[in-house]
Amino acid sequence: MNQEYIKPDEWSVVEEGFDKENVKSSESLFSIGNGAMGQRANFEEQYSGKTFQGSYIAGVYYPDKTRVGWWKNGYPEYFAKVLNAPNWIGINIFINDVTLDLNTCRKVDNFRRELNMKEGWYQRSFVATLPNEIQVSVNITRFLSLNFDEVGAIQYTLEVLNSDAKIKMIPYLDSGITNEDSNWEDKFWNTTKVTSERNRAFIEAHTMKTNLATCTFMEASATSSGIQIEGKIGEAKEAYVELEFEHDLKKGENITLYKFGGYTVSRNHDPSDLINAANTVMDEVTNLGFNTLLQKQKESWADIWKMSDIVIEGDIKAQQGIRFNIFQLNQTYLGKDSRLNIGPKGFTGEKYGGSTYWDTEAYCIPFYMATKNQQVARNLLEYRYNHLEKAIENAEKLGFKNGAALYPMVTMNGEECHNEWEITFEEIHRNGAIAFAIFNYYRYTGDYSYIIEMGLEVLVGIARFWYQRTNFSTKAQQYVILGVTGPNEYENNVSNNWYTNYIAKWCLDYTLDQIEKVKEDYPEDYKRIIDKTKLYDVELGEWSKIASNMYFPYSEKHQVFLQQDGFLDKELIKVNDLPKSERPINQKWSWDRILRSPYIKQADVLQGLYFFEDHFSIEELKNNFDFYEPYTVHESSLSPCVHSIQAAKLNRMEEAYAFYLRTSRLDLDDYNTEVEEGLHITSMAGTWMSVVEGFGGMRIIDDTLSFEPRIPKQWEAYSFKINFRNTIIKVKVSDKSNDFLLEGEEEITILVNGEKVLLQPTN
Amino acid sequence: MNQEYIKPDEWSVVEEGFDKENVKSSESLFSIGNGAMGQRANFEEQYSGKTFQGSYIAGVYYPDKTRVGWWKNGYPEYFAKVLNAPNWIGINIFINDVTLDLNTCRKVDNFRRELNMKEGWYQRSFVATLPNEIQVSVNITRFLSLNFDEVGAIQYTLEVLNSDAKIKMIPYLDSGITNEDSNWEDKFWNTTKVTSERNRAFIEAHTMKTNLATCTFMEASATSSGIQIEGKIGEAKEAYVELEFEHDLKKGENITLYKFGGYTVSRNHDPSDLINAANTVMDEVTNLGFNTLLQKQKESWADIWKMSDIVIEGDIKAQQGIRFNIFQLNQTYLGKDSRLNIGPKGFTGEKYGGSTYWDTEAYCIPFYMATKNQQVARNLLEYRYNHLEKAIENAEKLGFKNGAALYPMVTMNGEECHNEWEITFEEIHRNGAIAFAIFNYYRYTGDYSYIIEMGLEVLVGIARFWYQRTNFSTKAQQYVILGVTGPNEYENNVSNNWYTNYIAKWCLDYTLDQIEKVKEDYPEDYKRIIDKTKLYDVELGEWSKIASNMYFPYSEKHQVFLQQDGFLDKELIKVNDLPKSERPINQKWSWDRILRSPYIKQADVLQGLYFFEDHFSIEELKNNFDFYEPYTVHESSLSPCVHSIQAAKLNRMEEAYAFYLRTSRLDLDDYNTEVEEGLHITSMAGTWMSVVEGFGGMRIIDDTLSFEPRIPKQWEAYSFKINFRNTIIKVKVSDKSNDFLLEGEEEITILVNGEKVLLQPTN
Repeated sequence: MNQEYIKPDEWSVVEEGFDKENVKSSESLFSIGNGAMGQRANFEEQYSGKTFQGSYIAGVYYPDKTRVGWWKNGYPEYFAKVLNAPNWIGINIFINDVTLDLNTCRKVDNFRRELNMKEGWYQRSFVATLPNEIQVSVNITRFLSLNFDEVGAIQYTLEVLNSDAKIKMIPYLDSGITNEDSNWEDKFWNTTKVTSERNRAFIEAHTMKTNLATCTFMEASATSSGIQIEGKIGEAKEAYVELEFEHDLKKGENITLYKFGGYTVSRNHDPSDLINAANTVMDEVTNLGFNTLLQKQKESWADIWKMSDIVIEGDIKAQQGIRFNIFQLNQTYLGKDSRLNIGPKGFTGEKYGGSTYWDTEAYCIPFYMATKNQQVARNLLEYRYNHLEKAIENAEKLGFKNGAALYPMVTMNGEECHNEWEITFEEIHRNGAIAFAIFNYYRYTGDYSYIIEMGLEVLVGIARFWYQRTNFSTKAQQYVILGVTGPNEYENNVSNNWYTNYIAKWCLDYTLDQIEKVKEDYPEDYKRIIDKTKLYDVELGEWSKIASNMYFPYSEKHQVFLQQDGFLDKELIKVNDLPKSERPINQKWSWDRILRSPYIKQADVLQGLYFFEDHFSIEELKNNFDFYEPYTVHESSLSPCVHSIQAAKLNRMEEAYAFYLRTSRLDLDDYNTEVEEGLHITSMAGTWMSVVEGFGGMRIIDDTLSFEPRIPKQWEAYSFKINFRNTIIKVKVSDKSNDFLLEGEEEITILVNGEKVLLQPTN
Repeated sequence: MNQEYIKPDEWSVVEEGFDKENVKSSESLFSIGNGAMGQRANFEEQYSGKTFQGSYIAGVYYPDKTRVGWWKNGYPEYFAKVLNAPNWIGINIFINDVTLDLNTCRKVDNFRRELNMKEGWYQRSFVATLPNEIQVSVNITRFLSLNFDEVGAIQYTLEVLNSDAKIKMIPYLDSGITNEDSNWEDKFWNTTKVTSERNRAFIEAHTMKTNLATCTFMEASATSSGIQIEGKIGEAKEAYVELEFEHDLKKGENITLYKFGGYTVSRNHDPSDLINAANTVMDEVTNLGFNTLLQKQKESWADIWKMSDIVIEGDIKAQQGIRFNIFQLNQTYLGKDSRLNIGPKGFTGEKYGGSTYWDTEAYCIPFYMATKNQQVARNLLEYRYNHLEKAIENAEKLGFKNGAALYPMVTMNGEECHNEWEITFEEIHRNGAIAFAIFNYYRYTGDYSYIIEMGLEVLVGIARFWYQRTNFSTKAQQYVILGVTGPNEYENNVSNNWYTNYIAKWCLDYTLDQIEKVKEDYPEDYKRIIDKTKLYDVELGEWSKIASNMYFPYSEKHQVFLQQDGFLDKELIKVNDLPKSERPINQKWSWDRILRSPYIKQADVLQGLYFFEDHFSIEELKNNFDFYEPYTVHESSLSPCVHSIQAAKLNRMEEAYAFYLRTSRLDLDDYNTEVEEGLHITSMAGTWMSVVEGFGGMRIIDDTLSFEPRIPKQWEAYSFKINFRNTIIKVKVSDKSNDFLLEGEEEITILVNGEKVLLQPTN
């Protein structure tokens, strides 16, 4: 744990007291988003202290050129970046012409932030003593509307406490924005129009290269003592425009500025129509007014929580942690648009650049499947179908042929846009996760239509890739997969990573099964798919031959699957025997030392045992868990959740709980000393899995929902809801009993600890 | 073979006819250098066609920042670059105010270049018809003086053939130079002074960051019909200065401009004294005059050739090839200064950045040992001793302790300055080559003083590194070396590269032996070294334990040492069975595909069998050669020479000859389609080895010089000279006889085909 300043609270994230050292961290933790856009919790007024300004629009990215000293064939030419977008939240404040800037104030008292997760708003308040000794009390509420997802709203109230004062409030738009992580200071935005009319202003800007057009807009109004204050149009520059409100306050009086702002973008509107679209949406929200819009916000969040909340009784920190995770996931992606996906940092930072990793398939889809309707998960699968052609091109760049598809490690538009060869070229197991998500979606939803309409083509491309990527080893007399990086990125360019070999074999088998099934049950579709993919019977035979003769490294001595061929040559010192001063190793050790060490960044063999749990005995799980856990450093945010689920399955609840806490409060407590850079959004879905699959023991067994509930001794009870094939089941587990409540009108049989239980409608 | 336009000639490189497509290639091939500076064969007059302008000063480099997307701990912060230096050769020519530019001339006739290797000068002549129809005949001679190595000289003669004309000649200096391979257009030179006086001009400029100060200077004079033409000072700008000579020529008359120029640098002079030093050296050379200076040049080259020439009878292309190699090596490094070393491209290009690779120890030292006096090779060894402290720092950055030394993969000043982790962190066998060179130097020269004075400290640092870099494998029950890149860079991050393990063990054994020997024979020195290195007896025991229990991968089935643990899992298709269209694989295949292929870029196991030939039987050599040669693609310039030597040893003269041709005419015939970028200087020493060690079979066996001469059937005879411990022996091999001629006054016993032969003084 690296920080403790966040107050425990069931429904809110709360900071009290102003500490400049916490500003960047809080900018991440108090981030808000609505699936279409999001922003770090930057101050509206000027702040000259350490800050990381960030505002982001879903789907708006920039292909930054990557340059490394020694280019190799097949390297991606660019690295797609989440793009820091024009700023619409800014409101500069002058008190008797002195800038309000918390960094230069004489004193800041009663500073408080609250991110109200239940209702979806963010509030900040403080009393500041300016360099001119004037004391002001400020209270700001801000939210990004779920109902009008192009718009956010700010209520900025300021009272002068100790004298009369002239107040100037300057709400502005600024498109002169750069990325913190920009390579060589390239400009990413081209501003084409800056305009204002009455109390509204607009900046049209498009991204360089990708040419994504945006209009950043605002409307502002101000009142004091019930009187509307006339604003005027202020300065307009190349990439900046402002409005100006000036008013003399008597001591004890206050002024409130309302600012509505946001973005209209060419993904949703004709590029020539963005200002019109902005005016339309501003008309709508300003007709409603701030309070009504906020009321709608609360209702929309109530709807989300109704389905997705997890209640934990008797452990406020765990409660806050899980809600923070669920809240952030919903702020990031709501599943409305299959052109969007879930970036590892959501709208809270720029690191990791692209928006889509295998995190989506491995961690996020289960959460969205269970807490939304199935269309949301299907949209995420469609995203990959829409990128199939690019995945085939990506494989061709690496020398594969005949429609083999290699999905990118990182992408914004289907093209690979990461730039480390040991990742992009070798971390090919990602292809398996994409196939696994198809299987998992069908297993959970029972909706076979995706496979028929889209999924089988994806599977064929993936199977072709694995077929071409294996080779027959005359030494092993089996098929091997050389030169890969497994989920554990602390090894690379290894041969026969067990996880990769296993998922490759599984992909081949699963694809063969689905071809067979479609052929039998959907002959018309079968014909269409065969024609489209130009699939020959001979290919199926070849896949089958490889799948049935794949090599899997195994240690008889340890009775475990070997992470890769050479694992047992390593110096096997357990993590607990390493000096504390040498951890985290990714900050203390040189890269080569990490690579030849046995330390595991995130579940690797164990990831395979998680995905394919029913292929292995509990004894096998135990052996492998006991062998690999002591070498796992969990320096990836995606690591502890899988270990938590498996520890729970092994009935090691203390361990499971420890892993759970680490994953659920990773950002709130800043375990990895990097929360300033943004939140770990995709791993938050893993936290949800830790509760539902880990403690709740939820599985799907032969089309039946199954639970094996357990509860950590630190908790009195916990409960969650599951949408299983349009039937909603509420699960409540306490140390005394397990309750299963059916919401809906059709009865359903579930399994509880292996026993059939018939749930009846309750009304 | 990629080009054939170079005319075969025993002593010269000759191009005839003007082809714009050959300009960049010829700029490399006709490069000149004198050990202290060098330059590509750029035209003096303006040229608007495709060209790669390059002039380089020994030891002048720039640490260009390296940037990759994902930084890892221990990455070098910069990549040291050979720096493109200010231009002093430029002479702009105007004929009736029209620029002479071969790219825009109506016609270019009788174009001819000659690089006279025997005498060390470069000549270019042509007849050009300008856009204004005036026809001029031009003849230029240029050389960089061996006798005054800060100076070069140009004689530029121009005759008007078809009319009277006003001639303007503008010799200039220009420091507004950038590197072709500059990252993100950084400026590397800071010009501080531009000045001229009478017929001389000077530019003082220092490199950014490294702050190496230089003065680029020139003096120019012109004559026509025996009359001196008055010059005047022309334009001076921020980083440019010129002189101007104007003269009216009658049809058939000519004008000759003499330009002397070059650099004085802060490595040799006080930085405040560079202009003075330039004036001094210009006084000296202009007093001598162009013709006398050229005469001295011829004499100096005659001295070099007297010792280092290899004569091949009956094969003019082979003759031209070997002389080109010897000539270029001498142009690059003459061994005068232990602060300098041998860059892979010498002074002919910028690629590969740094100046020093393990090429120096593995390939260049044998050439310099045998063709110069031993001080030259000793200077190269001293270079590494002077960098020992940096090598220890380099190892510390990677987590090694206690005085372990890891020499950099690429360096200018002792610091690592390459930037691929798989090379810098893992290609650690380079450390072994540095120890091997110490052994090799002593074996050849019998001079033990280097080991006592410097070498043993280097060996201790290297042994400590190997000790810490191994680990005990409980699986193998031996010591292993994980995560390395061998000499074959087409694999990386492999475990137990046989070559690396072997040279590591050898380093430990050799260091232990030398410690023992110094302890016995030089007890005073021993005490000093032990004190300085803080070497404990316990360390020696640990080294010994590892050296005697090192793991070496071996295939019983193939009876070969395995390049690395996983080699036999690869798909073993021989190079000859690959489609021609897929080669060279480094241009056709993606990097991951290369890495998992069996293809070998340059000798790896075979490099070990070359270094440690006497540790292995001829049978072992044969097995390994037969196994690895068919997978070797020789896509490194350093590859064919080792194979040539080993093929000769195996008495496969056809193969040996084919490898020899490939190495000796690599650049002249442009085998790798890249000669435009510069020449492959360090591999040229390998060519020399192919003749002397390969065909001549030269070895040192127990302090005795030994030969097993063979001759390719394409040759009538060949001869070379060897300086062995200050005794010079001339070896002449023909298809009829082997002759050994002693130059000197003391008899010497050598071995010829294993038989003792006593050579007597001949006079």
